Amino acid sequence: MPSGEDDLITRYFKPLATAPGALGLTDDAAILQAGGDDIVITTDAIVAGVHFLSDDPPDTVARKALRVNLSDLAAKGAEPAGFVLTLALRDVNEAWLAPFARALGEDADQFGCPLLGGDTVSTPGPAMISIAAFGRVPLGKMVRRSTARVGDVLVVSGTIGDATLGLAVLKEEQGAFDHDAMARAALVERYRVPQPRVALARAIRDHASAAMDVSDGLMGDLAKLCDASGVSAIVQAVALPLSGPAQSWLTSDPSLMARLVSGGDDYEILCAVPENRLASFQLAARSAGVPVSVIGRIVAGEAAPQLVDAGNREISLQRRSYSHF
Amino acid sequence: MPSGEDDLITRYFKPLATAPGALGLTDDAAILQAGGDDIVITTDAIVAGVHFLSDDPPDTVARKALRVNLSDLAAKGAEPAGFVLTLALRDVNEAWLAPFARALGEDADQFGCPLLGGDTVSTPGPAMISIAAFGRVPLGKMVRRSTARVGDVLVVSGTIGDATLGLAVLKEEQGAFDHDAMARAALVERYRVPQPRVALARAIRDHASAAMDVSDGLMGDLAKLCDASGVSAIVQAVALPLSGPAQSWLTSDPSLMARLVSGGDDYEILCAVPENRLASFQLAARSAGVPVSVIGRIVAGEAAPQLVDAGNREISLQRRSYSHF
Repeated sequence: MPSGEDDLITRYFKPLATAPGALGLTDDAAILQAGGDDIVITTDAIVAGVHFLSDDPPDTVARKALRVNLSDLAAKGAEPAGFVLTLALRDVNEAWLAPFARALGEDADQFGCPLLGGDTVSTPGPAMISIAAFGRVPLGKMVRRSTARVGDVLVVSGTIGDATLGLAVLKEEQGAFDHDAMARAALVERYRVPQPRVALARAIRDHASAAMDVSDGLMGDLAKLCDASGVSAIVQAVALPLSGPAQSWLTSDPSLMARLVSGGDDYEILCAVPENRLASFQLAARSAGVPVSVIGRIVAGEAAPQLVDAGNREISLQRRSYSHF
Repeated sequence: MPSGEDDLITRYFKPLATAPGALGLTDDAAILQAGGDDIVITTDAIVAGVHFLSDDPPDTVARKALRVNLSDLAAKGAEPAGFVLTLALRDVNEAWLAPFARALGEDADQFGCPLLGGDTVSTPGPAMISIAAFGRVPLGKMVRRSTARVGDVLVVSGTIGDATLGLAVLKEEQGAFDHDAMARAALVERYRVPQPRVALARAIRDHASAAMDVSDGLMGDLAKLCDASGVSAIVQAVALPLSGPAQSWLTSDPSLMARLVSGGDDYEILCAVPENRLASFQLAARSAGVPVSVIGRIVAGEAAPQLVDAGNREISLQRRSYSHF
């Protein structure tokens, strides 16, 4: 006599509940053992038509929903411990749910972050996936936004702006099509499926003085980090890590720099590293297989962070980050 | 230069983030210290037009969103530790948000469950509130669904069916209006604002062999508990705790019993208590100020739980619980 929701959970999500504390999703709650660590909690939701496109493949939607949370945990120096899922759907569409659940399970396995519980609700509106994810750090060791210090070096992982380009490709924007098909596909993939820097968590915890993930645009997120820390920053545009397609896009129109540094969905990690820890951090990042680039420095002051060109002239930015409201 | 979302969080939700681990909502994640306990995690979402009515007062929506989760924690024997909030809204409507946030803060205070973090997203669809709530129990002491034993006494807190009646009043159903205005208002309040049995958590942890909260209808939820425990149960209809309005509704049409025991939103606690712990449980419940009633017994077998009348004849139930799908 299972209800529609129970049946759906049994078929699609129970296989993902591999942790003993999930109790096979047969209870009203799950158990998370801290084992002497602090539990780090983050939550992020994505809505069809807002954070992903309604016709995005369901497997990429699942991966994005989990990975945006894993990105937050990594930036805090936390090792993934598990997550709970709220899934709001118009109806039970098996052709959508099956690949969604399968991809979610693959990512949960890959990143060591098992499903602990959830709620499935019907909505007359667009699909929405909300995830709360949990990580562990040794007591008191969560890396914060608010602890950057003047003189720290600014470091970012991976490349910046590719997700913005991927969205431009999907929206068939002029200029974003001057690349070959493989480059276009890679950019779209970058928008749809973030690569959370889970492997970098330990290096951040051991060496960074402050960190956050870049989800709403590099310069806007840097402003948040500076604001929380009571400092300012200078970023060298020439030092920004850009992919080949981003570089060629920028060459075609240098004014597009503003979009690359204010566009959302990078899901890279921005951190402040004391100068005397930089070499150790870079070594740890290399061991973890994550490319990192020095892009600037934390400076004193309350001004908004500046992006400067090779001649140290400020590059003006009308918008620093992406807001859905 | 706060974005719309940051501004909204600062104005309405930062005052609720009273726990040190919430970091004033200025970081990407929160810290929850387990202090040697197990962390109990539950999540429940409510959608406008599905779980609450679109014109329900925003303060009642906030209270319901948090309380349905607190009800789960209480049923598991857990003391509230905090929650994260996902709020999906069409737009930033201050006339709605201000009372929503104020009521949420009052409940967080009242039940000792501070806001730890959240995500606010825009949606073109109906409002949705998803909460993941965290509680603490001593290691290994979470009370499960799956551990009821044959011979245990079945106990339920409070009264059953009033929320179903309240919804009938709101929907202006025939028969639900034969009460005076005060009774009608009380029933509607019962539907809109559950009373989570947080005070009963300790008694459940100390004495119950299995427990769950009644959110989707008493008989349907009992079937889930029995199924998880590999047992069956018999419930005496005459022993069901009914409010005055529910009793008079039932007198007017005895066939309405089926609705009272299968309607949703009771948010009472159903538990199985070993006979030799019953007196201690009842004493602890009385000390906690929570009325509890013995309604039946766990029996051997795999049959669906039976509701029987005073002559031990089964009362047939077409539907045992409420499903939104």
